[in-house]
Amino acid sequence: MRRLWLGSVSVLILLNCAVSAQEVAWRANAARMEERILRLAEFGKDPRGGVSRVAFSEADLRGRAYIISLMRQAGLAVRIDPAGNIIGRREGRESHLPPIVFGSHIDSVPNGGRYDGVVGVIGAIECIEVLNAHGVTTRHPLEVIVFAGEEGGLVGSRALIGALTPEALAVVSISGKTVRDGIRAIGGDPDRLAEAVRRPGEVRAFLELHIEQGGTLEAEGAQIGVVEGIVGIRRWDVVVEGFANHAGTTPMNQRRDALVAAAELILAVNRVVTSVPGRQVGTVGRIGAEPGAPNVIPGRVRMSLELRDLSAEKIEQLFERIGEEARAIQQRRGVTITFMPIDATAIPAPTDTRVRRLIAETARELGLRAIFLPSGAGHDAQNMARIAPTGMIFVPSVGGISHSPQEYTRPEDLANGATVLLHTILKIDRGALP
Amino acid sequence: MRRLWLGSVSVLILLNCAVSAQEVAWRANAARMEERILRLAEFGKDPRGGVSRVAFSEADLRGRAYIISLMRQAGLAVRIDPAGNIIGRREGRESHLPPIVFGSHIDSVPNGGRYDGVVGVIGAIECIEVLNAHGVTTRHPLEVIVFAGEEGGLVGSRALIGALTPEALAVVSISGKTVRDGIRAIGGDPDRLAEAVRRPGEVRAFLELHIEQGGTLEAEGAQIGVVEGIVGIRRWDVVVEGFANHAGTTPMNQRRDALVAAAELILAVNRVVTSVPGRQVGTVGRIGAEPGAPNVIPGRVRMSLELRDLSAEKIEQLFERIGEEARAIQQRRGVTITFMPIDATAIPAPTDTRVRRLIAETARELGLRAIFLPSGAGHDAQNMARIAPTGMIFVPSVGGISHSPQEYTRPEDLANGATVLLHTILKIDRGALP
Repeated sequence: MRRLWLGSVSVLILLNCAVSAQEVAWRANAARMEERILRLAEFGKDPRGGVSRVAFSEADLRGRAYIISLMRQAGLAVRIDPAGNIIGRREGRESHLPPIVFGSHIDSVPNGGRYDGVVGVIGAIECIEVLNAHGVTTRHPLEVIVFAGEEGGLVGSRALIGALTPEALAVVSISGKTVRDGIRAIGGDPDRLAEAVRRPGEVRAFLELHIEQGGTLEAEGAQIGVVEGIVGIRRWDVVVEGFANHAGTTPMNQRRDALVAAAELILAVNRVVTSVPGRQVGTVGRIGAEPGAPNVIPGRVRMSLELRDLSAEKIEQLFERIGEEARAIQQRRGVTITFMPIDATAIPAPTDTRVRRLIAETARELGLRAIFLPSGAGHDAQNMARIAPTGMIFVPSVGGISHSPQEYTRPEDLANGATVLLHTILKIDRGALP
Repeated sequence: MRRLWLGSVSVLILLNCAVSAQEVAWRANAARMEERILRLAEFGKDPRGGVSRVAFSEADLRGRAYIISLMRQAGLAVRIDPAGNIIGRREGRESHLPPIVFGSHIDSVPNGGRYDGVVGVIGAIECIEVLNAHGVTTRHPLEVIVFAGEEGGLVGSRALIGALTPEALAVVSISGKTVRDGIRAIGGDPDRLAEAVRRPGEVRAFLELHIEQGGTLEAEGAQIGVVEGIVGIRRWDVVVEGFANHAGTTPMNQRRDALVAAAELILAVNRVVTSVPGRQVGTVGRIGAEPGAPNVIPGRVRMSLELRDLSAEKIEQLFERIGEEARAIQQRRGVTITFMPIDATAIPAPTDTRVRRLIAETARELGLRAIFLPSGAGHDAQNMARIAPTGMIFVPSVGGISHSPQEYTRPEDLANGATVLLHTILKIDRGALP
């Protein structure tokens, strides 16, 4: 039977890409994946728990060396592109075809967890291991990719789509090195970034397996999340100007208390964001009152506002409604409220609808419950979506916790994710993306 | 006629202490008062505007020297008591009687105004000037007092009532000196504080003229405020514990956002405090969210809570209602809220009801509109109230502004206040406090 699926034998078979009874037995090895994840967690192990393996650090370098060794063990031809991305290639039967690319990243936030990014890299290598074990050669070349500096601003994937600017190269990363020096430190060449660029059509498809980092899969009892896209992000600095005065001598009805007004605005943000169906989120994460003494009425409050959604239009609509609420608060409280957009915005990046359908179908055929959901966090997939049909597969984060030493994903969920990744790759390989 | 009021001639006259037609003409000199206030403002003049004449500083010393010179010019016998209080005495016809004491302070907050405290001192000296001009000798000795270190914690008046503890002496004041060294620097002797103490009965009455520091007189079109007492103050550190999480990946309905809960609590404080009649105030002046990043849901908020009222019972009732609201917020938002009392409390200090009536009556007789109101700020009068019948007279603060270079009181209001002070002293002198 194997020949049938791997060759381009019949139209019927090409259109009917269901996972066959035999293929269903091709499963990722949960124990091997977990063992490798825990092994990688030794590089940059944080004495407080979890992992501090920030991009371009010594720990990052040692982690990358470990991954390269796993790739080579799995028979991949490994190179580091000028952006510092690690690319492990497995040739296909038709080497002129564009590769199917899959992977994620292994750099972490400071005091982060063991799973963020890592699951997608170890999962990608696991797919190669399973293909090796069953002696499968795909039509398309396969490329496992470890993107450079994801947590520091999607450095590797931006470079890969030609969007890493000179300004971004000059940014000082958490490692203390500039991105430029960091790329050099991990074996890239920041002066030859153009050679790292892939153009539309040069990648058959991109797939990224990742932990959810939220609690939706767990809450809904699903094993697989089919990512509808990476949300757009808009941020503002908000300033509420009232009038500072003596907290003892100023009657309640004569106050222009900037913090009371800010409290109304915080609740308005929450109310507006939850007033319409959908998975949009809105957050005030930072706040400060001036002058900031217990016995002085706050004259000024500075706070952040962040809105995220898959639809840029919806973000705009929510922001307009928040603005209306702010105008009412200004009237009511005798304050002025100013929203200053800050330059940390990301436009929404929908995944490819056909790839989404393939992932969902694959999960169903494997007996796994899958749901569709957006990714609230940024991922390299949002850049790859600009040059290739892109899909993302989420596996559950226990308790919805991420960017924390408490980050955890169960071994069976790791294997489910890698198995769905593998069979989605095989479907694409045999022409499921017409 | 003059003899009639100054002697103890008839029961009828003693009970009918109204300001006579002749006395009504005894008025404080607005121009002289303003000129002296502006002159004093040169000592510690702040380049940013206003005055920085913090207690025990070089500017404080020079300001005190100026005041002593004014006192001596007015014929007062000046001494500095062991607490550093300046006391200018004018003998009465019956020198065995306890003195009528009046005054305030001349130290300021950093970058404060020209009027806070100063009006009460210049106004007290003005009373002496008017008595001198009309050749009046009172029955009781009169003492003009300039309390030491008011802004730094009512140092002089605490010492005067025997309540200045060794701990308070060790506190480092804003001048950089300890209170102990500060008292020494201004001519006191911290080792002989016991000699500064006045016991109940040793002061016939205490009166303090002061700017309102709030906007109530202005809002109500009144020239004189009859202070019902100095409010009690209670403060808490409030901690709201939620759960920090990724602002992109955590759905709105799975959040335990400490800042959203804190916003509800801030509005609850405002609602509870304004829900009952009265002049009570409640303030959240300080707030911070942790970890405090725009893209992280706040896991913890720390903020201050302060409640002030003339009635300790009312403060307690308000706090209980705030506690009820906090419990409802805990339920609703999945957070815990803790109130930790902090040691900056003051018990309410009501003024003497007879003195209040006298001040109000005097204002009326002088054709001035007076209203009753609490003092939301602390004053030396709150200590003096523990050993003597005490009254406080407020004059309007333009715009309700205080502790600011913008602090301002009109010359006519300065004079009105001092004139009410003078005639209240005269009424007390002739036995209006039976």
